[in-house]
Amino acid sequence: MSAVDDLSVGTLRFLSVDMVEAARSGHPGLPLGAAPMAYVLWDRHLRHNPANPKWPNRDRFLLSAGHGSALLYSLLHTTGYDLALDELRHFRQWGSRTPGHPEAGHTPGVEATTGPLGQGFAMGVGMAIAERFLANTFNREGHDLIDHRTFALVSDGDLMEGIASEAASLAGRIGLGKLTYLYDDNHVSLEGGTELAFTEDVGKRFASYGWRVQHVADGNDLEAIDAALSTAIVSNGQPNLIIVRTHIGYGSPRQDTKDAHGEPLGPDGVRATKEKLGWPLSPTFLVPEAAGQHLGESLGRGAKWEADWNARRDEYARKFPDFGQKLTEALSGTLPTGWAEGLPAYDPKSGDVATRDAGTAMINEISRRIPTFLGGSADLNPSTRTYLTGGGEMGLDGGSGKNVHFGVREHAMMAIVNGMAMHGGVLAFGATFFVFSDYARPAIRLGALMRSKSLYVFTHDSVALGEDGPTHQPVEQLWSLRAIPGLTVLRPADANETVAAWRLALERPGPAAIVLTRQKLPVLDPAAYPVAEGVSQGGYTLSEAGEGPVALIFIATGSEVSLALAAQRTLAERGVRTRVVSMPSVEVFSEQGAQYRERVLPPGVPKLAVEAGSPVGWWRFVGESGGVIGIERFGASAPGPVVLDRLGFNVPHVVETALALLPPEQRGTSSTAR
Amino acid sequence: MSAVDDLSVGTLRFLSVDMVEAARSGHPGLPLGAAPMAYVLWDRHLRHNPANPKWPNRDRFLLSAGHGSALLYSLLHTTGYDLALDELRHFRQWGSRTPGHPEAGHTPGVEATTGPLGQGFAMGVGMAIAERFLANTFNREGHDLIDHRTFALVSDGDLMEGIASEAASLAGRIGLGKLTYLYDDNHVSLEGGTELAFTEDVGKRFASYGWRVQHVADGNDLEAIDAALSTAIVSNGQPNLIIVRTHIGYGSPRQDTKDAHGEPLGPDGVRATKEKLGWPLSPTFLVPEAAGQHLGESLGRGAKWEADWNARRDEYARKFPDFGQKLTEALSGTLPTGWAEGLPAYDPKSGDVATRDAGTAMINEISRRIPTFLGGSADLNPSTRTYLTGGGEMGLDGGSGKNVHFGVREHAMMAIVNGMAMHGGVLAFGATFFVFSDYARPAIRLGALMRSKSLYVFTHDSVALGEDGPTHQPVEQLWSLRAIPGLTVLRPADANETVAAWRLALERPGPAAIVLTRQKLPVLDPAAYPVAEGVSQGGYTLSEAGEGPVALIFIATGSEVSLALAAQRTLAERGVRTRVVSMPSVEVFSEQGAQYRERVLPPGVPKLAVEAGSPVGWWRFVGESGGVIGIERFGASAPGPVVLDRLGFNVPHVVETALALLPPEQRGTSSTAR
Repeated sequence: MSAVDDLSVGTLRFLSVDMVEAARSGHPGLPLGAAPMAYVLWDRHLRHNPANPKWPNRDRFLLSAGHGSALLYSLLHTTGYDLALDELRHFRQWGSRTPGHPEAGHTPGVEATTGPLGQGFAMGVGMAIAERFLANTFNREGHDLIDHRTFALVSDGDLMEGIASEAASLAGRIGLGKLTYLYDDNHVSLEGGTELAFTEDVGKRFASYGWRVQHVADGNDLEAIDAALSTAIVSNGQPNLIIVRTHIGYGSPRQDTKDAHGEPLGPDGVRATKEKLGWPLSPTFLVPEAAGQHLGESLGRGAKWEADWNARRDEYARKFPDFGQKLTEALSGTLPTGWAEGLPAYDPKSGDVATRDAGTAMINEISRRIPTFLGGSADLNPSTRTYLTGGGEMGLDGGSGKNVHFGVREHAMMAIVNGMAMHGGVLAFGATFFVFSDYARPAIRLGALMRSKSLYVFTHDSVALGEDGPTHQPVEQLWSLRAIPGLTVLRPADANETVAAWRLALERPGPAAIVLTRQKLPVLDPAAYPVAEGVSQGGYTLSEAGEGPVALIFIATGSEVSLALAAQRTLAERGVRTRVVSMPSVEVFSEQGAQYRERVLPPGVPKLAVEAGSPVGWWRFVGESGGVIGIERFGASAPGPVVLDRLGFNVPHVVETALALLPPEQRGTSSTAR
Repeated sequence: MSAVDDLSVGTLRFLSVDMVEAARSGHPGLPLGAAPMAYVLWDRHLRHNPANPKWPNRDRFLLSAGHGSALLYSLLHTTGYDLALDELRHFRQWGSRTPGHPEAGHTPGVEATTGPLGQGFAMGVGMAIAERFLANTFNREGHDLIDHRTFALVSDGDLMEGIASEAASLAGRIGLGKLTYLYDDNHVSLEGGTELAFTEDVGKRFASYGWRVQHVADGNDLEAIDAALSTAIVSNGQPNLIIVRTHIGYGSPRQDTKDAHGEPLGPDGVRATKEKLGWPLSPTFLVPEAAGQHLGESLGRGAKWEADWNARRDEYARKFPDFGQKLTEALSGTLPTGWAEGLPAYDPKSGDVATRDAGTAMINEISRRIPTFLGGSADLNPSTRTYLTGGGEMGLDGGSGKNVHFGVREHAMMAIVNGMAMHGGVLAFGATFFVFSDYARPAIRLGALMRSKSLYVFTHDSVALGEDGPTHQPVEQLWSLRAIPGLTVLRPADANETVAAWRLALERPGPAAIVLTRQKLPVLDPAAYPVAEGVSQGGYTLSEAGEGPVALIFIATGSEVSLALAAQRTLAERGVRTRVVSMPSVEVFSEQGAQYRERVLPPGVPKLAVEAGSPVGWWRFVGESGGVIGIERFGASAPGPVVLDRLGFNVPHVVETALALLPPEQRGTSSTAR
């Protein structure tokens, strides 16, 4: 270890220690143990440009063990990212750029939000898939414009999480040779030694997935780490795991103990650690000049890498103008101009259509118009119907096509979709049955928190899926997802709303969940109904029928819109005039101005929400005097129409419930209401 | 293969095929391929008594690949469980006992509800842990009263799910030698061949977890399967995986294709299959006499096993009367008489207490009173504080104690808790941070669906956890869990409510989630407030303060109850009389009679709900004219008190919001309301 290496590692270690100490909160153990490997990676291998954290061809680095955030902030500060020392001094404080766990969009250079364990591991796989797909799509002989690596630092906690197993197995299958993970193997977890719960042979496990596994016996041996990284970055078509034996809290009185985990060392501990490792006790937040200069050389290297790349990109654009434009468009994250012109429209006369099938048509339409649209399902393509015809396969027979076969791995799938979205350049979706959104919920939440442009597709959206029974029938999922801040949930009522919903999902910022039926639904006539504009407002007046003022308003979503329309017709026949509001997105509707919302849902008019799911959130819209026809139990195994009928989703029950909300004199002729 | 073996396997195969055909829905592929291994297991190894599916020492069998339910129903019917042939004829129909996926409590002999992949795998691990713990607790030299095995049939889908990896690694660590899983290795998943997404070396992977792995090359070779099972059931301290190469849809025109997966074979396909395998075309639902007689011998064997066991139990009870009584109590599933007498009570004068710490005291109290209470955390004991002092360790140094170190595996943890609960005899909990309830959500849902007596403990229950930031701060979790039918969610307001909440969790049927704070909270004086009775009603009038009629009602839960009380005092000072309702459980409150509910929350009085989480479900309680102080964004990294304050959880904001809900003349003196 040269003097400047030594000084640089010490700088990263003690900036981190001082941050945690100043905050009186945080994890000093990981930075002390893992600083050497992070240093070698960043100093000798990572190709990035601190002056432009958005340079498209940069290597990606993820701190999957997000609790070690102080180490990442130390790296970002010292290598020249726009993260002042003063931000490090305000670690974990309100308004600082140095939150407790790394947050993408909050701190320059943070590629993805991490902390919930395993998420970073899986997102890295997504980034490597995105890179491979973009390289395959755009690179031309002699013009490897997209050519970067993805690195992560992972912990025992990451590797214990099931999502990491899912992602690792898939990465092995696809053969992501540009993926390299450093495993901070410190033998200590939060409860104590990893032998409490984690005695598996990690190397053997990853070899079983098809990874190339290397071991570094001493986490302070920079040259051994360097050698392993040098081997790893020469791709042999396998993802790489480098198992580095480290010591949590290295050099501190708490070294190799669980107490190095989630607490500051305390003044005495800091003093002892600095003395032990030969670091000046003061000033705190010390960046010795030589270390600062050395680490800061990243800026010069980065500027050169980016300038070289820009020149190559310009040459590429001259040589392949069409591709050049498409690449620029893709990397800009904007949709191609006019991409949505002439989208499909469905005619009611052509028969009923399941919204999953309208979804199939739409994603294939999108795929034709947007060359970087890709995705797949968690081994359910025949049911979710989310295959991109002619799109090729990702990772089969060496291919790098658009159809990703995620396997029965919902959680990793959605995290990988997040990783692809955070990589940029691609537009990615994952698909499964709606009830299994639960399996992917932590990834969906993280997508919402990062505002990643992730597309979560869910079919089989209610008890109407029928025979598979309550294990497969969603009930509480709609409101559970609507409760996640920043997620747009879309449940279109028919094929035409599905087209509009997909359009909205692509054009709005942040992630969207698109929730589709298994069963066929009547098509709403776009000539008669303001479907496209209505969907863009989240909720809208679909239909008014009958004579006189509106006596009642139905609020319905998805498959229940046609039920509400049928109830409306029955009520009209008996002289009761009602309005049907279709509400494909509660979030989008809630963003509209009060004037619009009150025009659609005027106060004082009785309201009845109809949705084949938990009623939990509808009371905000129907008020105390309103009603909700929902489901407050689990479903049952039987043909879908039977289940719907038994649970009250039939015209007589809806009509009866509506009439009961009206004063007797407004109930029209031949009342059947109790 | 003897003639009767052949006939028995054929019976299982074609009962399943005919069921799927009659329902025009279901999965014929798994039963055709896996019937031989299921037959050998049930006929030659499984110790059970079809006449008493609740015999405590029976071997457990789980069909983790729940989509093959027809095979399980065929086994149950033919071996003598109370499942008539007519039920098989009504497979997947409303009201039948043969739902699309196996449902515990619905069909005799179904040990756990399966279908969502990986859940059965993890629950089996829980059952094996429960067996080991009970054996350790109750068995005495020469009296191995608890001594049974746990088997499961698992599919590629199970093994792809992360939860299975988590559970498998933990099972290896603990050394569950009585666990044996048969892997139906048919090389076909729903999208196509498993090579699409699942090329890992499964045997090597399980060996890396510490499992004993065996291979059976031909899934129709009964003797090879028998030999592997015979090896597996002689414990060497390792869990067992037997990888059996099978052919999905064996014998049918769809053999070895994905089309054997989720669809009936159709009349032609059924005919071709029966012809190919030499089975009579009619009658359908054929149980040849010899097969029926042979398979039915399970009844005789089972009766003898149980009678022998009963005799041994009686002898045990005579010899160890104290243990005998405790065993009877444990196996009955009832709590010890008077278990709740003299539970701890907290005095406000002794200072503030975090509800997680009151929880620590309470679980240790429970553990002292209930010998079969066990559990642990997902590597967070130092933070969740859920260690059972003196309870010993599960699986460390050969021990079988009460503290289970689950590792960072929230999903498997809660499924294992479910498995322990479904095993019976024990009362089990799992613990993690509240935000990570998302990781375990599919298991929590399944617990609610099965009504398993599972205890889910969550600490760090709001943004008040502070510096760890939005990745760790729950927001939408409370209402997301409350939306799950049949789950009791408890968020106690102080130490005394925590005692009452734990009591309620134990005494109510079905699973409960107990949601606790990281931060200290004032203690509600049990002499002044009706805490214990109030909690048992879910919500109750905690406090009324001021002069005159009640102008406004606060509804608060958990840490926000003391905030509401503080606001109440401020309002009382200005002459505004308010009520504070503490609502530790929305579900329990909603079960109370209308009279009680309207006494606590009378219509016509303005209401303001205060809860540091998503407001989504509170509108049902506060109505259109009410208000909710909640959180409709993600949190932020900063000290907890700062985050709470910035998000509006402070007395001035609560007072101001309350006043704004009142007509001006009721706002009292020195109004600060806008």
